[in-house]
Amino acid sequence: MKYISLLGATGSIGMQTLDVIRNHSEAYRLIAFSSGRNMDETRKIIKEFKPKLVSVQNKDDCKRLEAEFDSSISFSYGEESLVEVAVYEKADILVNAVLGSVGLFPTLQAIKAKKTIAIANKETLVTAGHLVMEAARENDVELLPVDSEHSAIFQALQGENPKNIEKLILTASGGSFRDRTRNELKEVTVEEALNHPNWSMGAKITIDSATMMNKGLEVIEAHWLFDIPFEQIEVLLHRESIIHSMVEFHDSSVIAQLGTPDMRVPIQYALTYPDRFPFPKASKLNLAQIGKLHFQEMDMDRFYCLKLAYQAGVAGGTMPTVLNAANEAAVSGFLKGKIKFLQIEELIEKALSRHNRIKHPDLSTIQDVDKETRSYIDSLL
Amino acid sequence: MKYISLLGATGSIGMQTLDVIRNHSEAYRLIAFSSGRNMDETRKIIKEFKPKLVSVQNKDDCKRLEAEFDSSISFSYGEESLVEVAVYEKADILVNAVLGSVGLFPTLQAIKAKKTIAIANKETLVTAGHLVMEAARENDVELLPVDSEHSAIFQALQGENPKNIEKLILTASGGSFRDRTRNELKEVTVEEALNHPNWSMGAKITIDSATMMNKGLEVIEAHWLFDIPFEQIEVLLHRESIIHSMVEFHDSSVIAQLGTPDMRVPIQYALTYPDRFPFPKASKLNLAQIGKLHFQEMDMDRFYCLKLAYQAGVAGGTMPTVLNAANEAAVSGFLKGKIKFLQIEELIEKALSRHNRIKHPDLSTIQDVDKETRSYIDSLL
Repeated sequence: MKYISLLGATGSIGMQTLDVIRNHSEAYRLIAFSSGRNMDETRKIIKEFKPKLVSVQNKDDCKRLEAEFDSSISFSYGEESLVEVAVYEKADILVNAVLGSVGLFPTLQAIKAKKTIAIANKETLVTAGHLVMEAARENDVELLPVDSEHSAIFQALQGENPKNIEKLILTASGGSFRDRTRNELKEVTVEEALNHPNWSMGAKITIDSATMMNKGLEVIEAHWLFDIPFEQIEVLLHRESIIHSMVEFHDSSVIAQLGTPDMRVPIQYALTYPDRFPFPKASKLNLAQIGKLHFQEMDMDRFYCLKLAYQAGVAGGTMPTVLNAANEAAVSGFLKGKIKFLQIEELIEKALSRHNRIKHPDLSTIQDVDKETRSYIDSLL
Repeated sequence: MKYISLLGATGSIGMQTLDVIRNHSEAYRLIAFSSGRNMDETRKIIKEFKPKLVSVQNKDDCKRLEAEFDSSISFSYGEESLVEVAVYEKADILVNAVLGSVGLFPTLQAIKAKKTIAIANKETLVTAGHLVMEAARENDVELLPVDSEHSAIFQALQGENPKNIEKLILTASGGSFRDRTRNELKEVTVEEALNHPNWSMGAKITIDSATMMNKGLEVIEAHWLFDIPFEQIEVLLHRESIIHSMVEFHDSSVIAQLGTPDMRVPIQYALTYPDRFPFPKASKLNLAQIGKLHFQEMDMDRFYCLKLAYQAGVAGGTMPTVLNAANEAAVSGFLKGKIKFLQIEELIEKALSRHNRIKHPDLSTIQDVDKETRSYIDSLL
C-alpha cells in the first residue's frame, strides 16, 4: 500500500487523481489532502477516502469541518497548512496539483522530507526550476511529471540514455482559438476562451492553452525536468492531441507516447511508475477510427506568449518568475473581465521588459519578485 | 571495436548494413560475410572492408576470388559455408540478412556459438520460431530485430515490463497495390508489383508487401520475438510508413517509434543497442512538413495472404513452415512470369489445406516439410 498526499484535491487534476486512487484502492490510499473553498467537494472526499489530514483555505471552513468530523482527522488552514500536507509523515508520494506558484514552497519542503513528487503544478518548476531540481538532486528525490506532454517524454525516455537526445518535441493542440487570426482574437469572450476542444481542464490552464502560454510554461518545465537546453525543445501543432509528445534521438529515431486525451493516464503512470497498472475505464486509442493525425508548424508571432516564454526561459534567472507571475495575474484579470484577451500578452511583455534580471535568485528573492510582479500587473488592470 | 559477420551482404539489407559499418568504422568492423552470385559487388566489398572470410554460392566464383586476393582472406562456397560465416570465431554480432528459410540453420549454429544475432531474415523465425527462441533462451543469446516494425516494437518496449503489454500494433503501408480492388489485382504485372511506394527493398520482400504476406510473416515473427499471442497482435494500415509500429500497454498508453523510412536506422540500432549512435546521413522526421498521417483498418479479405498467415500462425506446428515455403516458391514463380499475382495466395492456400500439421517439429522435420512444400508448389507452376 502506498500513501498519497494530494495538494489541490478539488481542482481538475486533483479530482482525476482521486479517481485513479479510487480505481486502485488495493494499492493506494489518500492520507492527506488540501482543498480551497469548495466545501461540498471537500466533505465528499473526506467521507469517501477517510484521510488523516485535511487542509483548507479559510479558518472558518476549518473550524466547521473540525466540528463535523471525528477527531481521527486533523484539520488545518491557510498557506502554511499546504506544507503540512506536503510533508505528511506517512505519505510516500506527494501529488502536487495546486495552481500557481503557491505550490513552490510546499514542494521544496516535501523534497527535503524525501517524498517522491508527482508534479502537476508546472508553475513551481517555471518560477524556480533551478531550486527545485537542485533540491531534488541533493535529496535524491524523484520528480515524476503529470502533465500529459511531460509524461509522454518521460515515458519515451524509459530505457534510453539522455545523452542520445537530439530534441524534445512538445505537441500543442492549439487551444480554443487555434483557427482564429490575431485580428479575430481582439474581442473574444471569457466563455469562448474557456471552451477547449480536446481537454477538460481548470479555467486558468484553459486560458493558458488559448494564449499558448501553457505550452510556453511546459517548454520551461521540460527544460528543467529533462535538463535539455531550450534550442533542443520544439513545439509542434497537433490538433488531435493524440501524440502527447515525442523525443527525437541522434540516430533520427523518434519515440512518441500516444493515447486518447485522458489526464488519468499520466496521473496513474506517475503513481505506478516504473510499473503500469491496468486502466479499464480509459477509452483505448483507435487510430483507424480517428483516420488522420494533423501536424503544423508553430507560428510564434501568432502565439506571442510562447515566444515570450522561450525568451524568458533562455534569459533565465528571475525572468521565468516574472513571466509566470505576470501571466497568473493577467489571466486572473481576464477571467474577471478586467482586460481583453490580447492584453494578457501585452501585460506580460511589459512586466518582463521593466524587470532587471537577477541571475541566481534564492527562494526569498523569487517570492519577492513574484509578489512585486503581481502587484505591478494588478496596478494596470 | 565490435566484429560483424554478415549473411547476405549484397542484398538490400546487407548493403545498408555495410553503410552503417562504413559510417561507424571507429566502432565496427566487417570480419566475415556471405554473398550470392553478384561477384562485382562481392569484390568491391572485399576491397573496401578487408574481411577475413568470404562465402559465395558457387565453387567457380570461390576459386576465382581465391586466385585474385591474397591469402589473408579465406574463401568458401555453398550453403554449408553460410554456417562458417555465422559462427566465425572473432565475430561478436551476426547480421542475418539472407533471404528465405536458408537462414535457419546458420542462425541456430550462431546461437549455439553464443553470437548476438541481428535478425533481418524473418523467414527463419516464421519457419521455426520455437526452435530459434528455445535455442536463444538456452544459450542466453540476444535476438535483435532489424525489420523496421520489430525494431520499433523493440524500442517501444525498452524500460517496460512485457507483462503490461495489451497489444502490438504493426503498421503496414499497404504495398504497391494498396489502392487497387481485388478485381484490378488479377492482371497486375511483375514490374507494377515491384514498385513499392515507400521502401526500397529486394524483389521478394517487395512482392510480399504487395500481397501483404510480408506483414503476415512479420506478425508471426513478432509472435516469436516478443512472446505475444496472435490475438494480441494487430495490423494497421498507415500509408506513410512514418509510425513504424506501436505497443499498447494495459494502462491504455501507446508507445510508438517514428522516423522517415530508412532501413539503416533499425540496422544501426541493432548494432548499437542498448546505446544509440548519431546518424547524420539520415533525413530527420519533419511532421509539420508531412502534414498528415493516415490510418485505416486492415481488410483481411482484400489482403487474403495476411489472413492465411494469421491462420497458419495460430495453428502453429509445421503450418507456418508450409506457409513460408509455399510463399517463397509461389513468389519465385510469379517473378519468373509463371503465375499471375492472385495465384500466389491460391497456391499457398492449397499447400496449407493439404498439409497435416505436425505439432512440435524438430529441425529435420521442418527441413523436410519445407522441401516437400516447395516441390509441391513447383509442380503446380
